[in-house]
Amino acid sequence: MPRQIKIVENILSANDRLAEENRARLDAAGVFAINLMASPGAGKTSLIEQTLARLDGRLRVAVVEGDIATSLDADRAAAAGAQAAIQINTGGECHLDAVMLRSALEQLDLSQFDLLIVENVGNLVCPASFKLGAHASVLVASTPEGDDKPYKYPGMYRGVDVLVINKIDLLPYLNFRMDYFRRGVEALNPGVLTFPLSCRTGEGLSAWVDWLIHQARAT
Amino acid sequence: MPRQIKIVENILSANDRLAEENRARLDAAGVFAINLMASPGAGKTSLIEQTLARLDGRLRVAVVEGDIATSLDADRAAAAGAQAAIQINTGGECHLDAVMLRSALEQLDLSQFDLLIVENVGNLVCPASFKLGAHASVLVASTPEGDDKPYKYPGMYRGVDVLVINKIDLLPYLNFRMDYFRRGVEALNPGVLTFPLSCRTGEGLSAWVDWLIHQARAT
Repeated sequence: MPRQIKIVENILSANDRLAEENRARLDAAGVFAINLMASPGAGKTSLIEQTLARLDGRLRVAVVEGDIATSLDADRAAAAGAQAAIQINTGGECHLDAVMLRSALEQLDLSQFDLLIVENVGNLVCPASFKLGAHASVLVASTPEGDDKPYKYPGMYRGVDVLVINKIDLLPYLNFRMDYFRRGVEALNPGVLTFPLSCRTGEGLSAWVDWLIHQARAT
Repeated sequence: MPRQIKIVENILSANDRLAEENRARLDAAGVFAINLMASPGAGKTSLIEQTLARLDGRLRVAVVEGDIATSLDADRAAAAGAQAAIQINTGGECHLDAVMLRSALEQLDLSQFDLLIVENVGNLVCPASFKLGAHASVLVASTPEGDDKPYKYPGMYRGVDVLVINKIDLLPYLNFRMDYFRRGVEALNPGVLTFPLSCRTGEGLSAWVDWLIHQARAT
């Protein structure tokens, strides 16, 4: 069905142009932006909460939360200390796109922030195809999901700049072969920056937070 | 953009017609079919493995595995004792559809089977919109995903016939409020048949397997 494929291509290239505009707007304001992606329940919102707690005001943070429904995540981000938290309900769409992020950016005075965290819809497939304009794509993997995920969701693992491996505190209770997982990651995305951590125990979080601070100060 | 919306509607209604044809074909052969859906890593393939082990030949089972890439899951199902295991690689699509299932059914002599297990792509959004023709839609939830998932993925939780709550062995290590989770489920899908279980320890699996046997014998 070539007509449908053509439409999808047009949508994607229009999206990419808007993503570039979003990036230019962020750069002009000196805001470092990350696009957090993961399966449902891998711990994106928990990572945002723990990041805000550990930043403890060292960066001024805005959070944009993408969800199909509810404002639960924006409520959590605001409660955790985000200076601004905007909820985008996609109304059924399985991913955020650059238009949605642009609408959110228009509600923010970007000069007031150092770091923008965009939490995408929980999905290991669709968000990989839609650039938003963020400086870094961050995939939050989760140990209970299993060690075969890089092999099964190559599009997502191939395209990200940073990999967070969350819930490492559960490793003793799981059959998760870290070697097998890392070999799959390495084949798709050699040398990708990786942060193993646990939002529940706090282990590994400081390296992640230090990286964010360094990136935000360099932007 | 009404033209795009119209196209999506047409695709969905064409899909529904094919799903009805798939159902008729399954009914004619007396095969009970389930459509297993879940987030990546919730345990769909593990549930299939454990189900096959516990059925121990009491039903003749065919498995159709939907994945974006690899045949890892079909290999696991075949190793676990499925009489037939067919892999569908969607080539990037975030869900199975009725056309894909029809292609798989054409490769099977349905008279040789009692139960067909279709494992959808790991995704809590997209598969909800595409009927396949199965008799029961089964959602596999997983405790490490968190207790807020019914609230955040209402389309999926609303549309299923059966809910499996997997990884209950991890509950002591998680902040999972079962009451909150179940209230969310109940609001969307009152009285939905629910099987709490652990594929790792085997707890709760026999009730699930008994239900499958009962359904397959009634078809």
